[in-house]
Amino acid sequence: MPKKISTKRVLELLADPEFQLIASESPWAFQDELDAVNAYLIAITPKTPAHLRAAAKPTSIVGRSVPRLGDPARLTGQAIFSSDVQLPGMLYAAVLGSPHAHATIESIDTSAAEALPGVRAVITYKNVPKVSLGGPPPQYILGQEVHFAGEEVAVVAADDIHTARDAIALITVQYKVLPSVTDPEAALASGAPDLQGGGKGNKLAASYPLTKRGSYDSAYAAAPVTVEGRYTTQTLQHATLEPRNAVAHWEGPDQLTVYAGTQYIMGVRAELATTFKLPRSHVRVIAPHVGGGFGDKSSSARHGRFAAVLAQMTQRPVKVEYTRPANFKAATHRYATVVDFKAGADRSGKISAYRAEAISDSGAYSAFSLTDVMVSIARLYHVDNAYFQQLGTLTNRGPSGFQRCVGNPQGTFAQEVFMDELAEKAGVDPLAFRLMNVETKVNQDAAMPADLENAFGGAGEAGGAVQRKLPWASCGIVECLQKGAQSIGWTQKWHKPAAAIKGNKAHGIGLSAHACAHGSMTMPMTAMMKIDQDGSLDVIQPTTDIGGGQSTTMMMIGAETVGVDLEEAHPSWGDSAFTPDSSGTNGSRQTISAGSAVLEAGLDLKWQILQQAARPLPPKNAPMLPGKPEDLDTGGGFVFVKADPSKKVRIADVVASTGGPMMGRGAHTIPRNYGMSTFAAGFAEVEVDLDTGEVTLLSYVGANDVGKAVNPLGVEQQMDGAISMSFGMALGEEMKFDPQQKFPVMWNWENYAMPTTLDHPKIADFRTIIVEPGDAVGPYGAKGVGEPPTSPPAPAIANAVYNAIGVRIRDLPITRDKVLAAIAQMKK
Amino acid sequence: MPKKISTKRVLELLADPEFQLIASESPWAFQDELDAVNAYLIAITPKTPAHLRAAAKPTSIVGRSVPRLGDPARLTGQAIFSSDVQLPGMLYAAVLGSPHAHATIESIDTSAAEALPGVRAVITYKNVPKVSLGGPPPQYILGQEVHFAGEEVAVVAADDIHTARDAIALITVQYKVLPSVTDPEAALASGAPDLQGGGKGNKLAASYPLTKRGSYDSAYAAAPVTVEGRYTTQTLQHATLEPRNAVAHWEGPDQLTVYAGTQYIMGVRAELATTFKLPRSHVRVIAPHVGGGFGDKSSSARHGRFAAVLAQMTQRPVKVEYTRPANFKAATHRYATVVDFKAGADRSGKISAYRAEAISDSGAYSAFSLTDVMVSIARLYHVDNAYFQQLGTLTNRGPSGFQRCVGNPQGTFAQEVFMDELAEKAGVDPLAFRLMNVETKVNQDAAMPADLENAFGGAGEAGGAVQRKLPWASCGIVECLQKGAQSIGWTQKWHKPAAAIKGNKAHGIGLSAHACAHGSMTMPMTAMMKIDQDGSLDVIQPTTDIGGGQSTTMMMIGAETVGVDLEEAHPSWGDSAFTPDSSGTNGSRQTISAGSAVLEAGLDLKWQILQQAARPLPPKNAPMLPGKPEDLDTGGGFVFVKADPSKKVRIADVVASTGGPMMGRGAHTIPRNYGMSTFAAGFAEVEVDLDTGEVTLLSYVGANDVGKAVNPLGVEQQMDGAISMSFGMALGEEMKFDPQQKFPVMWNWENYAMPTTLDHPKIADFRTIIVEPGDAVGPYGAKGVGEPPTSPPAPAIANAVYNAIGVRIRDLPITRDKVLAAIAQMKK
Repeated sequence: MPKKISTKRVLELLADPEFQLIASESPWAFQDELDAVNAYLIAITPKTPAHLRAAAKPTSIVGRSVPRLGDPARLTGQAIFSSDVQLPGMLYAAVLGSPHAHATIESIDTSAAEALPGVRAVITYKNVPKVSLGGPPPQYILGQEVHFAGEEVAVVAADDIHTARDAIALITVQYKVLPSVTDPEAALASGAPDLQGGGKGNKLAASYPLTKRGSYDSAYAAAPVTVEGRYTTQTLQHATLEPRNAVAHWEGPDQLTVYAGTQYIMGVRAELATTFKLPRSHVRVIAPHVGGGFGDKSSSARHGRFAAVLAQMTQRPVKVEYTRPANFKAATHRYATVVDFKAGADRSGKISAYRAEAISDSGAYSAFSLTDVMVSIARLYHVDNAYFQQLGTLTNRGPSGFQRCVGNPQGTFAQEVFMDELAEKAGVDPLAFRLMNVETKVNQDAAMPADLENAFGGAGEAGGAVQRKLPWASCGIVECLQKGAQSIGWTQKWHKPAAAIKGNKAHGIGLSAHACAHGSMTMPMTAMMKIDQDGSLDVIQPTTDIGGGQSTTMMMIGAETVGVDLEEAHPSWGDSAFTPDSSGTNGSRQTISAGSAVLEAGLDLKWQILQQAARPLPPKNAPMLPGKPEDLDTGGGFVFVKADPSKKVRIADVVASTGGPMMGRGAHTIPRNYGMSTFAAGFAEVEVDLDTGEVTLLSYVGANDVGKAVNPLGVEQQMDGAISMSFGMALGEEMKFDPQQKFPVMWNWENYAMPTTLDHPKIADFRTIIVEPGDAVGPYGAKGVGEPPTSPPAPAIANAVYNAIGVRIRDLPITRDKVLAAIAQMKK
Repeated sequence: MPKKISTKRVLELLADPEFQLIASESPWAFQDELDAVNAYLIAITPKTPAHLRAAAKPTSIVGRSVPRLGDPARLTGQAIFSSDVQLPGMLYAAVLGSPHAHATIESIDTSAAEALPGVRAVITYKNVPKVSLGGPPPQYILGQEVHFAGEEVAVVAADDIHTARDAIALITVQYKVLPSVTDPEAALASGAPDLQGGGKGNKLAASYPLTKRGSYDSAYAAAPVTVEGRYTTQTLQHATLEPRNAVAHWEGPDQLTVYAGTQYIMGVRAELATTFKLPRSHVRVIAPHVGGGFGDKSSSARHGRFAAVLAQMTQRPVKVEYTRPANFKAATHRYATVVDFKAGADRSGKISAYRAEAISDSGAYSAFSLTDVMVSIARLYHVDNAYFQQLGTLTNRGPSGFQRCVGNPQGTFAQEVFMDELAEKAGVDPLAFRLMNVETKVNQDAAMPADLENAFGGAGEAGGAVQRKLPWASCGIVECLQKGAQSIGWTQKWHKPAAAIKGNKAHGIGLSAHACAHGSMTMPMTAMMKIDQDGSLDVIQPTTDIGGGQSTTMMMIGAETVGVDLEEAHPSWGDSAFTPDSSGTNGSRQTISAGSAVLEAGLDLKWQILQQAARPLPPKNAPMLPGKPEDLDTGGGFVFVKADPSKKVRIADVVASTGGPMMGRGAHTIPRNYGMSTFAAGFAEVEVDLDTGEVTLLSYVGANDVGKAVNPLGVEQQMDGAISMSFGMALGEEMKFDPQQKFPVMWNWENYAMPTTLDHPKIADFRTIIVEPGDAVGPYGAKGVGEPPTSPPAPAIANAVYNAIGVRIRDLPITRDKVLAAIAQMKK
């Protein structure tokens, strides 16, 4: 019996980015809500001419490998980042951070700082607007209580950065130090430090309820094969090359411009509009080139507000740029997790019961209120009886957040090591185990939006009931596993654990599988474009380009759809005063969400071009081309007659004949009751030095189902980057905290060890495989790719290490210490 | 018998900005072409829902006085101009100008400059691309032949401006000096210096043929009253507060960004695309605040190319900024003119025959190939028998161009002093003379675009013949004259010439009338907008805002049309990567051209909002408001039911219910075979000191027909500025040239005397009158105002001086020398 979901509730859900993300991750837990939202969205889907949408197939552009547009500029130093922005009279800000992990400010004296010549303003919690930035605990632009070591306490704006830093040293603060905790389980124990105050406890419930399917308890009890285990992951820093920064500039009392390295200019604009009680149109956010985001730059966070508040106070532009140590401490981090699994399988290895309980370390402030390590877990395998629960807990580790995915790399690590254990217990090869258990049900009918109106059973635009067409619109997991296995030589190389030791070197091979909703479609999806009288196309695309090739992809989709040569197109982006909105560049959503919008805008423009080419023109009432608009098509910069392509006219001439540029606008909505998922597999081959415990990565193969690669080179680059990032998660990176003082003991490049090229396999042994099953929902069949490749490496490597030495390491990172301890256990 | 105009020719005419300007100035000379172009445009007019367009009447926003948006920032120094742009690694350029008015470069040695540490590149004619920038004579980025003193010969880019200037001093040039001429009549005489080379002569024919009507010769011979006279105007400099400047920046080999103080970003983009053989979409032109244009900044001219070429050579950003003297010499100027008139009238004072022959000093290079001082002359008066001819001539005075109008202030000065003479000869009061002779025929049927399709006689979209509906869609000249006369007290104060002398002070009063096509509609006309989920509106408007309030006006039209509060709206402009196109901010065209496009984009958006508000939404198929979209309207941030405005919903909620921002696009075309004209009158009262010759301006009243003032405060500010500029033209400004060396002897503030506030009447005696007859063509009835107020002051003042002392001064400016000479003649 489906729940009643009112329109009001649908609109609330639509406005909630978490809902779209989470519900699409766990569709069976949110079926009623999804049905209601999707029915709503289908009802409001714009009516693009159906034949145009149906005919939108890749020809010469989509599928071509195109170098990312910004790369030459980034590599030569020509690229302008927000931290490069210099404005006349600009002030520079320095930030004072708390030395304590948890404290209240008893007194703060800024008079000496204010008296320093060149200092223009000092802000503390006493003189900034008390605007909530979320929580729990309540977070403000600056607060009287600090919840992590390094938390911002005061900010100085001065004529130059040196004066600002000198002034910081002149501020005296009396802290009352409070009890603190950085271990998530300790934070949940009774008697733990009271981080919210008022005895509310540190436990944070998930935003969405625990999820259940079938009857886990009885299925587990009946299972002939059972396994359980506990897995932990560490705190990691994004370590973006460009630290947090912003330049704020007021023009008059109600017009704010902020240059910011951000992943979502429209989101930052909305945040700042709220902070300053302005209409969003009065806030302009400009993101030139962005030096990496990975999830930390989704919000303007505090630094954007510091710049804007100080600029308002001083009536001068203000630049805030975090130092590397400050960025390590105050930027969001990938949260640590603890996951307990229990599962049962039948004798063939088929999973019959599956239970997972996760604790996420939400840190000092949860940037993302859901502790969602679990969201990835329910998706990959076909399980009839399941029980999943997740909790978050406050600690004093600094604010948690996204890091190249929400919680999937943590969850997939835990699940895929666990599944390896279950496969072994069932006596099944790890590859065969995955192939047997993965969910592959696909319903990829050729339905395009126009056809899908029939889903309403002919009862009118919004009538009738919607039939769910789950599970997936496309599923390439089997192909990912098979092609990856073939590439790495799985059947030749896999062996029993610890069965390939030569001297002091142990060889191992491991794999992992992954599925997530990242890379799927979320609202809003809007785009614009314009074509000039010379036939060149500005694709005014909604993504904030953070260096991942987003703009290149949008340019390709735009050129393909309108029918101009790629060389004639160029993307425009990064200025909220002009750009449409496709949500933030996170969730791997831009190729499909922004891409769908660009496709719609392109069709809107193309239709106008076809109409103009077929329009009778004075004085002879002769059109440029014979026939109706429907009889024409575009390509290669021409409009031509479909039945006789030799009859053609330049698009440039058609545009010029209107007397000006032509423009297209596109708003896309979810066109069907779809279930979209991205899939990935990873294969790692390692050599473990039994004397030193060093793990050498011999080869790695990543395979990703991306639906259709709009830009194969771009997809490969995203996969390379995502996989490389995870090598650090697997084998070394960790942001550790001093157990007494609770401050981070790793806060700069010299003590936070990210992998270098020397830690990678040789180029020939580091391979990516693009799997392209196509997809009925995405633009030209595409799905996203930014995050999904991040999840498989850590479990694949962990499983390879197990395969080498026969002892499980269930806690990331796999350091030499842990390996040596495991080897000692092996030798026992 | 109308001429046959082919579609091909129509498209050529459409692409020719001069045609639209000139043909609309002299419609009776171009009737066939206008008919063909207008028929074409009407055929392609987009079909906005007719009821919406018809209902677009001003309510609470259009007609409100709104301070210009940029003013607080400009007044406090917060405004960012292109010359404020600082980019990392930016180089600074200095320019070497020729010391000779006409010469060829025999040799140029830049080796010492190149060897100076810090110098990164030196360009001369030898190493820049040989791209034509127009002519005649042929103009290149840098040429081997120079045609005016100060013409650019070499440009150096260095690490700082001081090094660049030092390097300039190290360049040695051997010139072969050639004969030169700065007097336009001397340039036309036989034996004049050969400025084009090859003996082609210096005479430039007008782009469009001389114009004739009726039979001038016989009418003149028959006239009982005849007058003839010769009038001259001087060379003037725009003297924009911001001199010419540009910062160019390449990202990779095929992406150029230029920050420029310009009046037309899309035009500069097209120019630079041509120069560098790039698609326009690969050139981005950004104009932040612009420090005045007045016609000089219509093109990127040379300085933009210097910056781009040097940036390409050095692979670093390059800033070019002209010094004030360089700007005086190399920027375009208002050209000097010589006009000969003959006219006849009947005994009542009605003009029966009218002949004018004009020579314009086109200078070294004609920025505008038509020498069009005449275009204003044919418009104001009803004349059955006329003969107008105009010539241009090359001289060595530097490049000529627009200056707050094309040639109207020159032509109107000549005509309105001449008409004063004709009136006197006929024995008619100057006011009565104008009222008797001005053309006032109006055909202002209520036709709006949708209705006007009927103009094709029902023969389909492009069928039938077009009936001309000339002359004007609206005409406020009589009201301008009458209200202005009343304000200054014409009937009480006017007296016979030299009839109000007390002691050494002579009182005088004068008036003038004016009509021009500036402020009317030209292609292209395109605009976009977007409204965010909070209901705030970004009006992505096509004008390049040069400080005249263009963006404020567009914001008002956008907010009015969509129905949001003005405070929720904000204009976006000035970045060619995003903005639509409404041609340059010159020709006073933006209020009507861009305004019409913004209106269309607003209607496109409003229609979507109404449709969404009326759309049945799942699950109950209940719409937000009852009825069809046609039954709804917007206003004050709400959508409401027309029949019951208490039934309403916030626009913000409607937008949010689509899941994202909503966007509108608007392309406007000329909606009817219209004749549009703006009108103005000026009244000046002076006191002439008979001892010193000093003319004191006691009062000035300007009256302008603007159709409908979208922003009355903005209109008043435009009128104030335009009138003030002309006080300098009337009473003192002149760019003189050394008669031997032919170089300008006035090239900086200290020797080019612009009027200050001390030269103005007291505030209470400096009045502007806005005349609002409405107009069936313009958005909300508006016409333009930027230039038309510039023309009346000089002749009104000249006529007042005559009224004071009884001796005509026919040559501008009216300096003390000339006044003293006239007084001496008076006393004879």
